[in-house]
Amino acid sequence: MAGSTWGTILTMTTWGESHGKGLGVTVDGCPAGLLLCEEDVQKYLDRRKPGQSRFTTARQEGDLVEILSGVFEGRTTGTPISMIVRNTDQRSHDYSAIMDVYRPGHADYSFDEKYGFRDYRGGGRSSGRETIGRVAAGAVAAKLLAELGVTVMAYARSIGPVTVSEERFDLAQAAVNRLCMPDAEAAAEAERYLDQMMAANDSAGGVVECVVRGLPAGIGEPVFEKLDARLAHAVMSIGAVKGVEIGDGFAAAASTGSRNNDSFRGAGGSEARNGIHKATNHAGGILGGISDGDTIVLRAAFKPTPSIAQPQQTVNRGGEDVEISIKGRHDPVIVPRAVVVVEAMCAFTVADMMLLNMSSKLENVKNVYLR
Amino acid sequence: MAGSTWGTILTMTTWGESHGKGLGVTVDGCPAGLLLCEEDVQKYLDRRKPGQSRFTTARQEGDLVEILSGVFEGRTTGTPISMIVRNTDQRSHDYSAIMDVYRPGHADYSFDEKYGFRDYRGGGRSSGRETIGRVAAGAVAAKLLAELGVTVMAYARSIGPVTVSEERFDLAQAAVNRLCMPDAEAAAEAERYLDQMMAANDSAGGVVECVVRGLPAGIGEPVFEKLDARLAHAVMSIGAVKGVEIGDGFAAAASTGSRNNDSFRGAGGSEARNGIHKATNHAGGILGGISDGDTIVLRAAFKPTPSIAQPQQTVNRGGEDVEISIKGRHDPVIVPRAVVVVEAMCAFTVADMMLLNMSSKLENVKNVYLR
Amino acid sequence: MAGSTWGTILTMTTWGESHGKGLGVTVDGCPAGLLLCEEDVQKYLDRRKPGQSRFTTARQEGDLVEILSGVFEGRTTGTPISMIVRNTDQRSHDYSAIMDVYRPGHADYSFDEKYGFRDYRGGGRSSGRETIGRVAAGAVAAKLLAELGVTVMAYARSIGPVTVSEERFDLAQAAVNRLCMPDAEAAAEAERYLDQMMAANDSAGGVVECVVRGLPAGIGEPVFEKLDARLAHAVMSIGAVKGVEIGDGFAAAASTGSRNNDSFRGAGGSEARNGIHKATNHAGGILGGISDGDTIVLRAAFKPTPSIAQPQQTVNRGGEDVEISIKGRHDPVIVPRAVVVVEAMCAFTVADMMLLNMSSKLENVKNVYLR
Amino acid sequence: MAGSTWGTILTMTTWGESHGKGLGVTVDGCPAGLLLCEEDVQKYLDRRKPGQSRFTTARQEGDLVEILSGVFEGRTTGTPISMIVRNTDQRSHDYSAIMDVYRPGHADYSFDEKYGFRDYRGGGRSSGRETIGRVAAGAVAAKLLAELGVTVMAYARSIGPVTVSEERFDLAQAAVNRLCMPDAEAAAEAERYLDQMMAANDSAGGVVECVVRGLPAGIGEPVFEKLDARLAHAVMSIGAVKGVEIGDGFAAAASTGSRNNDSFRGAGGSEARNGIHKATNHAGGILGGISDGDTIVLRAAFKPTPSIAQPQQTVNRGGEDVEISIKGRHDPVIVPRAVVVVEAMCAFTVADMMLLNMSSKLENVKNVYLR
Repeated sequence: MAGSTWGTILTMTTWGESHGKGLGVTVDGCPAGLLLCEEDVQKYLDRRKPGQSRFTTARQEGDLVEILSGVFEGRTTGTPISMIVRNTDQRSHDYSAIMDVYRPGHADYSFDEKYGFRDYRGGGRSSGRETIGRVAAGAVAAKLLAELGVTVMAYARSIGPVTVSEERFDLAQAAVNRLCMPDAEAAAEAERYLDQMMAANDSAGGVVECVVRGLPAGIGEPVFEKLDARLAHAVMSIGAVKGVEIGDGFAAAASTGSRNNDSFRGAGGSEARNGIHKATNHAGGILGGISDGDTIVLRAAFKPTPSIAQPQQTVNRGGEDVEISIKGRHDPVIVPRAVVVVEAMCAFTVADMMLLNMSSKLENVKNVYLR
Repeated sequence: MAGSTWGTILTMTTWGESHGKGLGVTVDGCPAGLLLCEEDVQKYLDRRKPGQSRFTTARQEGDLVEILSGVFEGRTTGTPISMIVRNTDQRSHDYSAIMDVYRPGHADYSFDEKYGFRDYRGGGRSSGRETIGRVAAGAVAAKLLAELGVTVMAYARSIGPVTVSEERFDLAQAAVNRLCMPDAEAAAEAERYLDQMMAANDSAGGVVECVVRGLPAGIGEPVFEKLDARLAHAVMSIGAVKGVEIGDGFAAAASTGSRNNDSFRGAGGSEARNGIHKATNHAGGILGGISDGDTIVLRAAFKPTPSIAQPQQTVNRGGEDVEISIKGRHDPVIVPRAVVVVEAMCAFTVADMMLLNMSSKLENVKNVYLR
Repeated sequence: MAGSTWGTILTMTTWGESHGKGLGVTVDGCPAGLLLCEEDVQKYLDRRKPGQSRFTTARQEGDLVEILSGVFEGRTTGTPISMIVRNTDQRSHDYSAIMDVYRPGHADYSFDEKYGFRDYRGGGRSSGRETIGRVAAGAVAAKLLAELGVTVMAYARSIGPVTVSEERFDLAQAAVNRLCMPDAEAAAEAERYLDQMMAANDSAGGVVECVVRGLPAGIGEPVFEKLDARLAHAVMSIGAVKGVEIGDGFAAAASTGSRNNDSFRGAGGSEARNGIHKATNHAGGILGGISDGDTIVLRAAFKPTPSIAQPQQTVNRGGEDVEISIKGRHDPVIVPRAVVVVEAMCAFTVADMMLLNMSSKLENVKNVYLR
Repeated sequence: MAGSTWGTILTMTTWGESHGKGLGVTVDGCPAGLLLCEEDVQKYLDRRKPGQSRFTTARQEGDLVEILSGVFEGRTTGTPISMIVRNTDQRSHDYSAIMDVYRPGHADYSFDEKYGFRDYRGGGRSSGRETIGRVAAGAVAAKLLAELGVTVMAYARSIGPVTVSEERFDLAQAAVNRLCMPDAEAAAEAERYLDQMMAANDSAGGVVECVVRGLPAGIGEPVFEKLDARLAHAVMSIGAVKGVEIGDGFAAAASTGSRNNDSFRGAGGSEARNGIHKATNHAGGILGGISDGDTIVLRAAFKPTPSIAQPQQTVNRGGEDVEISIKGRHDPVIVPRAVVVVEAMCAFTVADMMLLNMSSKLENVKNVYLR
């Protein structure tokens, strides 16, 4: 309950610090019999790897995953899947500039207040490298979801002030351009904006959007464990996320009931029961906290990278005013690398809730035990 | 894990349907020795009661709470506090118009898909009355927080397109006007907007803002149980909420690092360690998922009330197209009554995380056991 | 996590004190569609009711259950089932003799140390009446198990020094004699022993045995949530239980591998896969924490009723030596009334683990979602 | 919830198979500031290492632990402590004799039924090597308890039919003789008994006793999370344990109230509040599920090692009768190596419940936050 475990049936427990020996995750509760190999996980980790463009940090970290347990003869055994990524860059650095100083926008101060001290090397546990375990676990969940006909995909909706255009929206683009934006024109504009930010020793934020397709209606619990509540929790737990919305989100607050309600239709193209489906999807695929059979749509707001080379005013542990300029190479925007993290957290959460939902009806319980 | 329990140390388990015998909540894990009486809870429940203005439903529901256990000689005993509110209006109604029809924007369809059938009377478990248990539990948490110097307050930030002005912001107003808006002029404008909506048989949404003051730095867990992640979960689990943001939220995504980072200052007016405090609060009081000693600021987007009297296209259980006009009196906007629900969920979550944080440092553990 | 909730998928949250307004339980996670009425629960509660023989307390407590939520048109809805039993005997009593005195064998002292004070009326939360919620929840679980072909039955194995004979074992007897012993002769002897105890103002303990039949192989989790570990937890959490054993239990510790191992056999009378079954059942139906398809056998040791009329030496809150004689009528042995409590806790735990096990194989997950 | 995590505030999540790449554990929720190094953990692991006497298996496994995270500059940081023990003996073995055969007394059959298949190499996840993670985590808990003045110690109470004598009881002996028995004479007799078993290709079981000293009164939760219930769960979750008892345990069931009740005394040698203590300890230090300030006493029954070289009747996966003789060297009794496992599970559980109890009183919460 100290919060390094996520999930109810399908759980992940992560560990590791930025500049410690490594980082890892243990996935428990994955059904037995799922085909799984290191390559399945590695391709997800590669998407969050730094050094892929001039907008991501240049450090060469291999981030190679090793599966330590839970897979036998190519299939999951139902027992814990432990995965580890060793930190390769463990040279001793000079941390004297930050060990006693509270970097603005970072967790240095709040960690010191909580624990009395902190591992100040590269952010320690509050580093962005903490997401390695999330992504590895998300890769397992995505493999499971694929078996159930569910796909999860995330991309950059905006970077700084540059937003993807509805008209030019082209999902294929998100897979090819370096900023993961489904709009080549917006991506080019965002690149120019990021160049300006870098020139000014400044940084940018952005919005990641995630869509879940193929999820059957009926997933999610009705009160505190609503599907949207769990997704919000999962995504807000990613460092730097400051907001989450589902479907029309904040725009719905300014809409009207007649515009925001999605009409139901029957006998349409959907394969659902009696062909029931919705004509529109302002709800983002969730009604009353439970999936309605439509595409789940979620957006997450990422704040600008707090590490900037500009001089900033701050204090040291003693409360004395000091000036700090954050050295080293930092991503001017984390959104492109965060895309796979959002995708991983959504995939894991959806998979967990599908498993949790299996006993919602007596009929399903009988189907499993009385066949 | 079917999701009717919230919290880790301090937990609430709610139950009840809109038109069943009653609704209630069991609060477990409240420290022993807290002064508590029914009036403490009743005054919170009264704030969510319908029939308080022409913008809230006119049904006269007493919603009187009875504390059934866990309080002895005026103080909590440390054992479960069970509270019940009996439904008084249990006349048999005619539900034939909705029992087989899926109301747009409601959970009728998703409940049927999950459970195979549903209690269709007034929304059953997915009714807004489900929040009674949350509010009663929140009242207990607020009482506990008051002992620790922490206050939680929510109000309406916007209703439909009408937003509170920063210049006219006056928290005292939120306590007096019927829409709970901290800006008398905006409240008057919002009333006019709601009158239009009602005339058009339509409805509005809005944004609720909640602030937590007096929370010490260091509260929240660093990975999955970040303070903001838990708050997002808690608030998104309220029916009709479609988005949650902390501090600058989605606006931060379009900002820059140099503007969005909050500088630390020392020896200022704050009483915190060495007088360390922040010069601004774009972060909304949370850094790396852990409170930074500043005011917590959260906003929740509520969608427009889905029950509208306009005819709407939908389908019945058999997938046949039907038209529905939702009869009866419904709130044209739920925001004024939802304010106390957001406040309750935030108070409960913050109180739980304060208890959870008690063992973060060995020093604190020794203070409790070795004095 | 203050410990008034039990279970993972199927959960019960109990509340209430001996002499407060009532006691109750909320069962969450019960699959939708199960036939359930108050009579199903009442017949379990009647088995723990006092006043049924001269060996159980004479107080006339109706202990009538009311189902407040979660059942609609005779079937469970999948949402929380809240049940309440009002305390009828709420006259003011004179507690001056015990409010400041620590009764030997009771939780008075440990509660005071934990909470700083306690509800001293009739034991408050530590009273045997706390089991009402457990039994009501167990009745729901038993109804669910019956749908899955699983039955749970408990009876008295021994009372004081009198033990049921293997030769005379007759389960039908347990349902007819007042001590719930499956051996008429032992029951008669135990009655004589209890008469001696009562004459001496003393009390007796005993052993309850519980058997679970029809449970498929494969139920239970392999490490910390072994089926036997959960059952031990569930049963040891009943007040007055001081030991739990599975199968041969403590006797197995003195046995040898060749005698204690149960041989597997194929193509026998069992209907299991390939007719695989065990020739003997020293294991009590559990291997490696997971059910093996054989009958689950569990025994629980109950200590003698601590409330005895003999004068006992003890202290008051101030640490001064005092003598106490516990007035009022108390059961000279609680075993006959505890039988249904053990049965309820085992039924609930087994049902929960069956639901938890549904996702152990990918094949089962596909069966639920891809049919 | 697939059961590889134990604890509420202080949690351990274990992973790994007997013949996989390694085994490990992640401890979360350990308070920050605790001195911890690998040697602290290694000395616990060394106590469960095989090959220490002729009664333990001769395989030379180094079982060297590596701490991967959560410790910085010699102290715990409050974040997850990940520990790993690599399996060194990963030669390919010939498993053809057991891969399709169900060994009596083992979990082969129940795993196959649960998961559809299993890692058959050396028992996979159900191997005794699974306890490595438990012991490493227990070492951390013991270090924490030492800071709070609490010690946990286990030893062998009996081996096969040979039981430690009350008169000769000498705890110092348990630390020196190879069977961990606190009675040199009994240890010698047990050695002779084990020699007979080995000669007969048979095996023995035994009873481990664990005592917790220095635990303050008031630890444990009153209903489902009683201290004894948690301890029973923790200990019964160790493979091969078939029974657990507290204090007089099963013997209490045959006792009388007047003999079994422990009198309270004041102003004695104890340092507790007002000098209140108990004259005897039939209760084993727990009343109503909450510690009473006296020594906690727990006993666990271990069944005989199921791997025996004698030919045994069993079946293969196809349900055909086969004979099996288990090759290789196996412990004729696991009790001496299980002692530290029981100790670890008790230490971890007690430490967790101490942290969980910190918020039982409002006074303690104020002490932490309002000093």
